Amino acid sequence: MKIAVDAMGGDNAPEVVVQGAVQAASELGIYVTLIGDKELIAGALGSQVSSDHISVHHCEEVVQMDESPLKAVRKKKDASIRVAFDLVKNGDANAVVSAGNSGATLAAGVLTLGRLKGVERPAIAGIFPGEKSHVVLIDMGANVDCRPAQLFQFGIMGHAFASSCLGMKNPKVGLLSIGEEDTKGNEQVRLTHELFEQSRLNFKGNVEGRDIFSGDVQIVVCDGFVGNVALKLIEGMAEAMTNMLKAELKRSFLGRAAFLFGRREIRRFKRELDYEEYGGAPLLGINGVGIVCHGGSSVRAIRNAVKTAALYVNHRVVQKMVEELNSMVSNKTFGS
Amino acid sequence: MKIAVDAMGGDNAPEVVVQGAVQAASELGIYVTLIGDKELIAGALGSQVSSDHISVHHCEEVVQMDESPLKAVRKKKDASIRVAFDLVKNGDANAVVSAGNSGATLAAGVLTLGRLKGVERPAIAGIFPGEKSHVVLIDMGANVDCRPAQLFQFGIMGHAFASSCLGMKNPKVGLLSIGEEDTKGNEQVRLTHELFEQSRLNFKGNVEGRDIFSGDVQIVVCDGFVGNVALKLIEGMAEAMTNMLKAELKRSFLGRAAFLFGRREIRRFKRELDYEEYGGAPLLGINGVGIVCHGGSSVRAIRNAVKTAALYVNHRVVQKMVEELNSMVSNKTFGS
Repeated sequence: MKIAVDAMGGDNAPEVVVQGAVQAASELGIYVTLIGDKELIAGALGSQVSSDHISVHHCEEVVQMDESPLKAVRKKKDASIRVAFDLVKNGDANAVVSAGNSGATLAAGVLTLGRLKGVERPAIAGIFPGEKSHVVLIDMGANVDCRPAQLFQFGIMGHAFASSCLGMKNPKVGLLSIGEEDTKGNEQVRLTHELFEQSRLNFKGNVEGRDIFSGDVQIVVCDGFVGNVALKLIEGMAEAMTNMLKAELKRSFLGRAAFLFGRREIRRFKRELDYEEYGGAPLLGINGVGIVCHGGSSVRAIRNAVKTAALYVNHRVVQKMVEELNSMVSNKTFGS
Repeated sequence: MKIAVDAMGGDNAPEVVVQGAVQAASELGIYVTLIGDKELIAGALGSQVSSDHISVHHCEEVVQMDESPLKAVRKKKDASIRVAFDLVKNGDANAVVSAGNSGATLAAGVLTLGRLKGVERPAIAGIFPGEKSHVVLIDMGANVDCRPAQLFQFGIMGHAFASSCLGMKNPKVGLLSIGEEDTKGNEQVRLTHELFEQSRLNFKGNVEGRDIFSGDVQIVVCDGFVGNVALKLIEGMAEAMTNMLKAELKRSFLGRAAFLFGRREIRRFKRELDYEEYGGAPLLGINGVGIVCHGGSSVRAIRNAVKTAALYVNHRVVQKMVEELNSMVSNKTFGS
């Protein structure tokens, strides 16, 4: 088992990415290959280079955050994210982790490994801690302008992922809209609603923003624009709320006492809301394991993403998704 | 000064709405007219009917939550929300408050009072407590499928509202997208970005979901679908986070002590996040004051919405918006 880590991707690459990979190797015993400029990586590694769990694979190019993903990936054959997926294709690695341009990660994954049967557009799935159960939000940013048929496929992929990898039995699927009534939503959502209604998925109809946390449904489907806005809103709100709570508690003597007594709990609470703990988001629908990390990922976030990647390889996530997708096709889940 | 309250609108109408209006009248001394079925209102009022601050205006019809707003408002001439705006038009009331179908409130406002000059589509503005300053999110759900020119107008209205009513000088405007780079976003957002770039608004480019709380910009522009998803996500997350924090604190002895000591602060913190405190959302772009409340509004939320409505009337919000919109036209803010 070896995880290919795109050392050049992310706001603080290669330093933070390399440190995260080193932590995964030293603390969790996972073998990692760092892909990128060997001198920059050597600089970031410093004296830690000696571990046999860490190897370096040199490449010359990088896809920047502001590049058009598909064009860049096609043109830059030696870009770190392409080389990472090439290693998986050639059997030299088992999964890819990247905090770089997520569109480029998607494009490189599709170009190199291909799509799973029945999947038109791979998508990024986020896993959130709902009050009643975990909630899978799909798509979190891979596809900004989607047709209804593509949104419907996100539901199928979410179902396959949650059933096969999160141990959810016949998970409930909701379509993110602005009211529970069938007639609510924009045109895209109203048309998608009809497709879900005709399917044999456990479709619960429209859900609202609050349901990402309620856990009343286990899978929430939306396009990548809405999903990415939601993701970043959740991150920003978790941060702002923790700060506001601290400020409130510090305003009085009893509050300061409460803050001291509850410091450990407040920290744990903050951690529960922290995307860094979740270890990245799986790229669903490609023929392999790819984990997308936030551009601003910390060392800990990268470490956890490498851990998640290894877990998904061990749990044969892709094979299970293929089986689940096939069974849905034969059960005519795709249509009535 | 008299506020017309749609007694029939909201999940718990007329009881909760009537109680909220009664509180506004008795605690704040605001004159209110309750519009709706007089017998139902009398039942909800009970013995409180005697106050000279409260009057009842009977009407026969109601727009339901699942009705098509425009059709319903056109057809039901005696619907409570239409009658409420009629009272404003005839000078018998100064503003409207409704927790009913927000699309119908918008449609009735436009149909009865008309739009302000330069405004194609009125929008609902939400005011959030950012870390550095308050943030106006526009549109929160009135318009689900928008053209770029309409999104651009939301920015102008947001600017006019924040400048004239919130005392913000040359407020910064951001366009809600999925990355700060100009090229990020869906087609709608990329085209809108160009319009803002060419304008003389204080445009800071694309912002992300987190910026609804950062306060780095004071106005965040999005279509009503995205805005409504965001609004309900914020509400749901505030609720879920407070519950999670309580659960964390109750897990240990010190945590329980912290919870006891900090109870008052935690309650205040929760209140700060509570939309009910904000007193509804103004409907911008119509020729009058209209306040839209959440369908599930509590007594306190209705009370605060009536207070907000009275405040906007006193502060001559509509006149100020007209002046601001005119000055932007003459300053060529609408184009370069």
